[in-house]
Amino acid sequence: MNPKRYLPILQWLPGYGRETLASDLLAAVIVTIMLIPQSLAYAMLAGLPPEVGLYASIAPLLVYALFGTSRTLAVGPVAVVSLMTAAAVSQIASQGSPEYLGAALVLALMSGLILTLMGLARLGFLANFLSHPVISGFITATGLIIAVGQLQHLLGVDAGGQHLLEVLVGLAGQLGAAHLPTLLIGAAVLVLLCAARRWLRPTLVALGMAPRPADMLTKAAPLLAVALTTLATWGLGLDQRGVAVVGAVPAGLPPLTLPGFDSDLWGQLLVAALLISVVGFVESVSVGQTLAAKRRQRIDPDQELIGLGTSNIAASFTGGMPVTGGFARSVVNFDAGAETPAAGAFTALGIGLAALLLTPLIAYLPIATLAATIIVAVLTLVDVPAIKRTWDYSRSDATAMLATIAVTLGHGVESGILAGVGLSLVLHLYRTSRPHSAVVGRMPGTEHFRNVQRHRVETDARLAILRVDESLYFANARYLEDTVMALAVRRPELEHLVLACQAVNGIDASALESLEAINARLQDAGVTLHLAEVKGPVMDRLKHTAFCRELSGEVFLSTFDAWRALHGDAVSVPRQPAANEASPLNER
Amino acid sequence: MNPKRYLPILQWLPGYGRETLASDLLAAVIVTIMLIPQSLAYAMLAGLPPEVGLYASIAPLLVYALFGTSRTLAVGPVAVVSLMTAAAVSQIASQGSPEYLGAALVLALMSGLILTLMGLARLGFLANFLSHPVISGFITATGLIIAVGQLQHLLGVDAGGQHLLEVLVGLAGQLGAAHLPTLLIGAAVLVLLCAARRWLRPTLVALGMAPRPADMLTKAAPLLAVALTTLATWGLGLDQRGVAVVGAVPAGLPPLTLPGFDSDLWGQLLVAALLISVVGFVESVSVGQTLAAKRRQRIDPDQELIGLGTSNIAASFTGGMPVTGGFARSVVNFDAGAETPAAGAFTALGIGLAALLLTPLIAYLPIATLAATIIVAVLTLVDVPAIKRTWDYSRSDATAMLATIAVTLGHGVESGILAGVGLSLVLHLYRTSRPHSAVVGRMPGTEHFRNVQRHRVETDARLAILRVDESLYFANARYLEDTVMALAVRRPELEHLVLACQAVNGIDASALESLEAINARLQDAGVTLHLAEVKGPVMDRLKHTAFCRELSGEVFLSTFDAWRALHGDAVSVPRQPAANEASPLNER
Repeated sequence: MNPKRYLPILQWLPGYGRETLASDLLAAVIVTIMLIPQSLAYAMLAGLPPEVGLYASIAPLLVYALFGTSRTLAVGPVAVVSLMTAAAVSQIASQGSPEYLGAALVLALMSGLILTLMGLARLGFLANFLSHPVISGFITATGLIIAVGQLQHLLGVDAGGQHLLEVLVGLAGQLGAAHLPTLLIGAAVLVLLCAARRWLRPTLVALGMAPRPADMLTKAAPLLAVALTTLATWGLGLDQRGVAVVGAVPAGLPPLTLPGFDSDLWGQLLVAALLISVVGFVESVSVGQTLAAKRRQRIDPDQELIGLGTSNIAASFTGGMPVTGGFARSVVNFDAGAETPAAGAFTALGIGLAALLLTPLIAYLPIATLAATIIVAVLTLVDVPAIKRTWDYSRSDATAMLATIAVTLGHGVESGILAGVGLSLVLHLYRTSRPHSAVVGRMPGTEHFRNVQRHRVETDARLAILRVDESLYFANARYLEDTVMALAVRRPELEHLVLACQAVNGIDASALESLEAINARLQDAGVTLHLAEVKGPVMDRLKHTAFCRELSGEVFLSTFDAWRALHGDAVSVPRQPAANEASPLNER
Repeated sequence: MNPKRYLPILQWLPGYGRETLASDLLAAVIVTIMLIPQSLAYAMLAGLPPEVGLYASIAPLLVYALFGTSRTLAVGPVAVVSLMTAAAVSQIASQGSPEYLGAALVLALMSGLILTLMGLARLGFLANFLSHPVISGFITATGLIIAVGQLQHLLGVDAGGQHLLEVLVGLAGQLGAAHLPTLLIGAAVLVLLCAARRWLRPTLVALGMAPRPADMLTKAAPLLAVALTTLATWGLGLDQRGVAVVGAVPAGLPPLTLPGFDSDLWGQLLVAALLISVVGFVESVSVGQTLAAKRRQRIDPDQELIGLGTSNIAASFTGGMPVTGGFARSVVNFDAGAETPAAGAFTALGIGLAALLLTPLIAYLPIATLAATIIVAVLTLVDVPAIKRTWDYSRSDATAMLATIAVTLGHGVESGILAGVGLSLVLHLYRTSRPHSAVVGRMPGTEHFRNVQRHRVETDARLAILRVDESLYFANARYLEDTVMALAVRRPELEHLVLACQAVNGIDASALESLEAINARLQDAGVTLHLAEVKGPVMDRLKHTAFCRELSGEVFLSTFDAWRALHGDAVSVPRQPAANEASPLNER
């Protein structure tokens, strides 16, 4: 066992120098400033007390610095995972109860164990079950649900409801009851954050600031909003006038917590933990890969599973909640010049100081400020043009995407992601279950063979050459049988059928049985089956099978060899492609 | 709508003549003789009264003659579906109760509706989810379960138990309590049937009988066994001496029955109905296709779904049980010369006559005779060599097969088939999630490019040509990213990377996003991305995407064009393949 594989810190710590330290420290300060309001907000989104967000941004970051392979990934609570946490835990306990907190810890622990075990078993490829359109659709839908769910905090009303529509109806009914001071604070923060996003950076640059510091300062806008509205609430006594505030938050480092080991609870949370693990991993790995590539570094997805898994386990023992690598904060970390995971460890120290010293100050922080922060953050996740783009490129991918969005919005996050994964699989199997194939003929005077429907080629009534353009496996084996037998039925004068296999990269056991069936059926029908251009590795496996022993015809090296051997002296005429000719073959 | 598509009877009835009638009648007589004991036995296997088997062999056959596309398929109760029926229904009601019968009717109705709807929606391709090794493993395991389950009837003891091991242990404990007369009858029938299978046909042929009538006579052996043992039991009064017999069976045509519409019951039976539908369909279609091919006929799988679906619906309204196309009886029907589905309709008349006239006679039929009939029939389903054969050909297919067998034997038929389907899918995705790819170089003096690890080819340190040997889709998109970025990290001097796409038959939306990511990341790393040999239909779709607009390099028609344009005047040396060279590429 190579310790450097499982402890990536051994790769960078020995060469750690003063310059790297300076870069990492600067990045840590900037990420800390950004992470404080985010941690509070995402804890609230998960239905947890705000300090849980801070706790989840300390130990997990330290552990990720030990086990993670990305140099710049910043882990902690993120929006989508927080929403999934809320959805899962609120099935089990009511918000605010000790059971709710306990279930969130168990969820973090289970998700951590699942990720770590997947990493040890090198199951990173399982994340491939989530296709891009499904992820994109899921994140768009999640962003919408989160944003709509926060509107009640902006309005200062209480609109319950499980699903988007219920919440919207509930909100509409209470528009009149909106609490004006709360609404004003929320609206001010929204305007401030949107303005900062759009104008602050260009303005600062126009005033002569270098682009990177300008960028960094822009990212501090949420902290500014937190400070200003907290101050205003405290100064004007707005909390006495009905503005909901965060309230007393205990000061101090994270507590040691022991997640419960109740098998019923574990059973109830299993599916949620699995989905949170996979969704969190996919999100994290895409960010990590994008950033690593910019510096020609690499991340190891299987070790990333271990890094994220141990971070979640750490979260579960330190009063935290499920965490993963966040997109925005990782980019900030990268841009601020972080060079090693030590930057993450320093960020953890920063958040630790905040937990110790700043918590008394945020008692007057309005909930509406956090809600506005969340809304601005998640609306960047909503990617409506992606729907149009996917639709234009591929109807079946777009179908999976729309189904994911619809089910997520209408039936919740877990059903949504499961529906998307299921549908992608079915659509993929459907697509590959009808492999391209083409009857080919000889380009006169050459050794090349092309589609008879597209080219003027020589053919032979007694000989059909069928080119199969896909690997053969269980989902398309039966279709191949159909295609071949249809050809034999359509051409009663047929004597030889050649399968040209230059595009066949593999033949699984189902396809092998189909080939056996094709061979036997063609023989019954008086047609000899031949193969041509079988790839080396495919032939290696076929050689020892009953199919090869019983093959009625021969295996030719090239299609031309087959043509030369089987064409004989039959009359052969170049034929014109007939576009409207009825054909059972799937022609693309 | 083409009526001939949905009513295949319109294709053959108008041309029906006297000769066809004679052939069909002969086949019907032979199939009827074979089907009588089978119907009784499979009803017993499903835990239902024997007459239900007869009823299920009347109306369904008439309906299949209207809607089915196979000329020679013989539908009715079959072993595997009967076992699945027993497994599903015994969860809900105790055997012998009216609820048990009612649930079997509901199961037939649901399965019929599912099949018909699948046919109308042209979802026949869904059957492709069942790979050959999974079906083969499932049928082997089912055969074992059925055979072991019948042993108690042979021994005249009562060994309960849900799973194979329990039943075996129960039997072992009761060996001493075996009922001798019952055992003698069972053993005699076993010997008779096995002897008939092995010696009767050769002997008859040796005695000068033509092979086909000899074959037919051999198939009548079960009916002979039924007649002999019934007679013996009646004559010797064996039923008075403890030999279990079928007992009074009501004479008459099938009753009209109305399946219950209790939504709870439907919910409980849904999964079972789905699995019975798919398993029955797959079994039926394979038989149908094999037989149709022998006469260069075709069957339409989507219309077959409608044929089988309506047959099951008919079964549910006439006191029957789930049915499908049986292998052995269809082959007999075919060999006996059946030419149209009318043979099936005549068989239905034959069974109808049996239900009217023969039922009083079978009151003395020993259960042990039926058990022996079942055992001999299902042991032909157990295909142990197939396990070895599959293992030799493909470990991953064999894994799916063994898992199916193990879970079916240990946890029941439904879990078994689901485990097999799930595992095949995962293994398939795993296989295709690591596409073959190879860095290629130019064969000196030619326009051909081959794998640098297998051939002595020219390469260029600033240019890498990567040939991808698989269509790109969500399950392998991320692996492609990894492969490409690993290449870029490994070769810091790299300036151009060409993806050679001659084996790429499709690019889905996930793979498109991966290509976009690869393009952007390579650009960040100072490498230009080019494509070569993109197939026409793939290029048609790529043309309008952001990827094509943002592609840092060019799209070359051939790999050689790319080489000529990018190779420049760099030093190029033919290099020797180094077999032991470390490479992250998946080389097959």
